Amino acid sequence: MPVNLAPLKAADLHPVPGIRIGVTEAGIRKAHRKDLTVMLLDTDASVSAVFTRNRFCAAPVQVCREHLASGRPIRALMINTGNANAGTGAQGMERARASAAALAHILEVAEQQVLPFSTGVIMEPLPIDRIEAGLPAAIADAKEDNWFHAALAIMTTDTVPKACSVQVPVGGTTVTITGVSKGAGMIRPNMATMLGFMATDAKVAPKVMQQLARELADASFNRITIDGDTSTNDSFVVIATNKAAHAQVDSLDSADGKSLKTAMLEVARQLAHAIVRDGEGATKFIAITVQGGRTPAECRTVAYAIAHSALVKTAFFASDPNLGRILAAVGYAGIDDLEQSGIELFLDDVHVATRGGRHPNYLEADGQRVMKQSEITVRVDLGRGGATDTVWTCDLSHEYVTINADYRS
Amino acid sequence: MPVNLAPLKAADLHPVPGIRIGVTEAGIRKAHRKDLTVMLLDTDASVSAVFTRNRFCAAPVQVCREHLASGRPIRALMINTGNANAGTGAQGMERARASAAALAHILEVAEQQVLPFSTGVIMEPLPIDRIEAGLPAAIADAKEDNWFHAALAIMTTDTVPKACSVQVPVGGTTVTITGVSKGAGMIRPNMATMLGFMATDAKVAPKVMQQLARELADASFNRITIDGDTSTNDSFVVIATNKAAHAQVDSLDSADGKSLKTAMLEVARQLAHAIVRDGEGATKFIAITVQGGRTPAECRTVAYAIAHSALVKTAFFASDPNLGRILAAVGYAGIDDLEQSGIELFLDDVHVATRGGRHPNYLEADGQRVMKQSEITVRVDLGRGGATDTVWTCDLSHEYVTINADYRS
Repeated sequence: MPVNLAPLKAADLHPVPGIRIGVTEAGIRKAHRKDLTVMLLDTDASVSAVFTRNRFCAAPVQVCREHLASGRPIRALMINTGNANAGTGAQGMERARASAAALAHILEVAEQQVLPFSTGVIMEPLPIDRIEAGLPAAIADAKEDNWFHAALAIMTTDTVPKACSVQVPVGGTTVTITGVSKGAGMIRPNMATMLGFMATDAKVAPKVMQQLARELADASFNRITIDGDTSTNDSFVVIATNKAAHAQVDSLDSADGKSLKTAMLEVARQLAHAIVRDGEGATKFIAITVQGGRTPAECRTVAYAIAHSALVKTAFFASDPNLGRILAAVGYAGIDDLEQSGIELFLDDVHVATRGGRHPNYLEADGQRVMKQSEITVRVDLGRGGATDTVWTCDLSHEYVTINADYRS
Repeated sequence: MPVNLAPLKAADLHPVPGIRIGVTEAGIRKAHRKDLTVMLLDTDASVSAVFTRNRFCAAPVQVCREHLASGRPIRALMINTGNANAGTGAQGMERARASAAALAHILEVAEQQVLPFSTGVIMEPLPIDRIEAGLPAAIADAKEDNWFHAALAIMTTDTVPKACSVQVPVGGTTVTITGVSKGAGMIRPNMATMLGFMATDAKVAPKVMQQLARELADASFNRITIDGDTSTNDSFVVIATNKAAHAQVDSLDSADGKSLKTAMLEVARQLAHAIVRDGEGATKFIAITVQGGRTPAECRTVAYAIAHSALVKTAFFASDPNLGRILAAVGYAGIDDLEQSGIELFLDDVHVATRGGRHPNYLEADGQRVMKQSEITVRVDLGRGGATDTVWTCDLSHEYVTINADYRS
């Protein structure tokens, strides 16, 4: 059961003019499930993306990077589940290229204008024949009002489809932002991978697209963690179809740029948070804010140390205000000149520790009250600067071990 | 049940001339259990130590550092369980000093000649009155042949006592090396802490003692991990009582120095491995060797990424040869210029992956056979240099979550 995630309704997802989506059953790993998605873009679209930093990145990630670097306008995305095409060596690269070439051939565009994405088992050959065979049906299914089915078709071990859509005024007209994501938390490199695709019909200068994708990812998908395992296939794609009638957004610092980015960030965050809320075995959604640091990077380092601590995560699962575990994680985060005497710790509104020791007014009953909630904010003040950062994570439960120990059998 | 750890017998532990050990029930947290240990050193002993790098280190760790830095000869160690005196602020420092002063007063030595160690709950005031009250009984119990009881008295959540003892020839005479350790894997900052104490009657120049402690720790206690959580109290102490009749060891590179260090390392490794074998919920003991790196540090980084991956650890628990998880961990370890095409992966004698992809002769049945063993070696070759390093860890089981989620309730 995802943590506080409202069921997705198809009617909630606004189509984005300029992008059509089709899905089909290609039988890549299992029969009778939609496992191949195409996103077809009109000629004016701009596309940018952010990929996994895993050096063992999958073949399709490498191909996407090459195709984006070619500078040719992207005309289609293709996403298969059931096979990650990772850990597949030279053959994997050949097949990733061949899959893009197959779609390009049908669409009569260049191979570099197609971006391939894969998610599923690692170290198994990509069944390129099935993907090629499935493409015509996926293309035939393509329509603007198909985001809900894309959300379903890109699922692997997700328990629910994940999508978000908003409409906001930009430059005097209403633009749409719609996105889908998948992943039960970067925690299953086998059937794993975090994928996020968002599109808007807003008119955005191509030169700011990469900045936009980077800034959106950094404040959403790059701030979530389930257990610290980074998949080989993680990808986040931002598409502007440029169909809206407003004046082009040339800078993210302009009034229109800020409005658009704020709305897109809301969608990106909801897509990212949905992955944490659906994290394997998750029973709690936890925001970890670290403030008072010298730099945001330092705050992030501490926040991730807390978020990755198996001890902290099991304590949240147990609703046990065993908060020394959080202080210990702060201490080993790797800030060499950190002074304990400057540390303050809060659990929601409860002041747990001050100057590195237990707060004189702290009562375990107050900590217990907060720990029992399904949404919790941990706030640490490092007391050495003005920077802040936040990451989001979930707890570590028996169900996590069950899922990851038993999954392939 | 610890993994392949032979039951400890008191008769296996040789006394070390020049050090007497006493234990008592001080009632620090629970009644009717030995929870206070003193180690009394004759005047000629040399002592060096390595401590946690956690910035939230406990008060006794800070006091030990000060006392060792004072240069006064150490005459006693005192170790209490039941309370870690960590996260206790200024009051914690006062009480750590007071405990050392109390023992120093009885022994008629200076406060700086006593090293205090604490392990147990965090963020609770140290019951200094009970410790002071318990000291006379602990001192009265002191005798050379008491290592077994020390191993028992320093346990917290350990399921078995941990100790090791060897005798080796050095400089024509037989010297003894005996040690005890505790910790169920740095995985319980609350009742946590890795502690290791070893002593030898060998005659060692004081100038090489710190180098000796550092090198022993780096090849033993600093190469084990259960889940990556570093305790606030971790300490490793090496004592040379200098009672043996051989010529003083002035260098670790001399023949005698090498013999002594090799034997001491064997003891240190057994003490460290015992902690992993008794790690919460551990069902397997796993050595992770990374070779072919440019530096040992780079090999270690990769080895720890594998050892800390919850996905890898759950796969070991399930005996599931889900080996893409290991490749993914190699990829995200943080070596920016790592080339997949150079990576080889072995599971014991089974060649799983070559040039970054599945080995053509690899059969899942072979991987399965190795994964079912209780002792497994993972070997990764990075294919970019001549360095190597090894770390040791255990799997992640349901029992781990049960222990850490339920432990305080």
